[in-house]
Amino acid sequence: MSARSVEVRHSSGGTRIDSVAIEEPLEIRIHHGPASQRERFVFSTTMRTPGHDIELALGLLLAEGVLDWDSELPTTRQTSDNERSVDLPPGHPFDPARHRRTGYTSSACGVCGLTSITHLLERALPEPAADVIVADELLMQLPQWMRPQQKLFELTGGVHAVGRFSQGGELQDVQEDVGRHNAFDKLVGSALQTRSGPLTRSIVVLSGRASFELVQKAAAAGVPVLMAVGAPSSLAVELAEKVGITLIGFARPTEFNIYTHAGRVSP
Amino acid sequence: MSARSVEVRHSSGGTRIDSVAIEEPLEIRIHHGPASQRERFVFSTTMRTPGHDIELALGLLLAEGVLDWDSELPTTRQTSDNERSVDLPPGHPFDPARHRRTGYTSSACGVCGLTSITHLLERALPEPAADVIVADELLMQLPQWMRPQQKLFELTGGVHAVGRFSQGGELQDVQEDVGRHNAFDKLVGSALQTRSGPLTRSIVVLSGRASFELVQKAAAAGVPVLMAVGAPSSLAVELAEKVGITLIGFARPTEFNIYTHAGRVSP
Repeated sequence: MSARSVEVRHSSGGTRIDSVAIEEPLEIRIHHGPASQRERFVFSTTMRTPGHDIELALGLLLAEGVLDWDSELPTTRQTSDNERSVDLPPGHPFDPARHRRTGYTSSACGVCGLTSITHLLERALPEPAADVIVADELLMQLPQWMRPQQKLFELTGGVHAVGRFSQGGELQDVQEDVGRHNAFDKLVGSALQTRSGPLTRSIVVLSGRASFELVQKAAAAGVPVLMAVGAPSSLAVELAEKVGITLIGFARPTEFNIYTHAGRVSP
Repeated sequence: MSARSVEVRHSSGGTRIDSVAIEEPLEIRIHHGPASQRERFVFSTTMRTPGHDIELALGLLLAEGVLDWDSELPTTRQTSDNERSVDLPPGHPFDPARHRRTGYTSSACGVCGLTSITHLLERALPEPAADVIVADELLMQLPQWMRPQQKLFELTGGVHAVGRFSQGGELQDVQEDVGRHNAFDKLVGSALQTRSGPLTRSIVVLSGRASFELVQKAAAAGVPVLMAVGAPSSLAVELAEKVGITLIGFARPTEFNIYTHAGRVSP
């Protein structure tokens, strides 16, 4: 269930029924260690729109470097509506210290910029395809082509969407969520689950702004072209430049800005 | 510095200079414990727009229940561009276990919904004033009155704003940030620092959507009326109902929806 009906009073005085997007917490736990001594680590708690929870967990773990594109897919268990456990195989290397975000030891968090950039660049990331070239006229259409598939946005006006397109403009997946980082994780987790990734030949479209975190997730997925309807942040531009992503912002039906690696866009 | 100039290629082929909002990590550390045995706890790392970092730290600590409106104001130190340390007085009660978000012990995080609602309701929150009544025609104007003060949005198109109005519609503060939760923390931290809170008679306006987290921060600040230009989430509505906040969404120049406690809005 991703939307709920609520009674609202309109400013004109009458009451009406409105649909609001569901926001609920999801705690993602990791079970790791040798078979004789399994340990449980609380990896993350995120406020998300329920649905595609497995994909969300897998996509997050890929973005954070716990899983790779060729990792054995871990089994996942739903221990309650708000908990999802991921069982890493006994031989899987997992270093909890890298994923602790609060406490007395030094932190290594998914959203801490410089440290994250260093960690990210140390990893073997999928290489975005160098020969992906897309016509500007095609790119301008993509947000509009995604729109009919933003069903939850249509209903609630309250969620972000992330879409995946082929180089030729075929829409391959759309995910929606109250959190744009979750929508991105769901998209990537879905590709991981169906073995249709990495996204080294895909164009990924964001319904909102492009932050550092989203470029980080795009880099972990190998995305060559990332297009945002909204503005990019300074750190999004810096990271896209470093990892070779073509970052497009302020995508409109007739124009857009290219912030980095403009060579992939043909006039 | 809150914006930076970058060279962009426009889709028409020319290059131009665009301003992007700065996004940089801020690690907030807490020093606590008796004078003879101080300990350092990494409380949070957030991606924020630099500026008003002290207010951000103070506002966050208030939202999370580490500080109260009548707490002695802790001293803060900037240990680097991306670190801010908060020195709690030796006698200040601080329970790290409540603020650990990842790891082997059970988590107690700022964005984990049900647990957070319970924690929040256990706390002595400032009571929103019951006699705040605002005319619908005044409310409709507030987002437009805030707009001229959204200077960074004007420049970059890439930040959220949170504004504080008096019951009569006087704009008292506006804060902007790439993260709306940060903008809210800055607003509350500023009120804490200037001893002009709690906000029990204020109308707070959000330039975007209303999530659970923002209603949680509003509740910790005692806000009676919270107005969002965007949509509220299901959990935002639930929490506003429980804590007695009038939650308004889809604020337009001629209309809006009231989701909870409609009695404070007069036709």
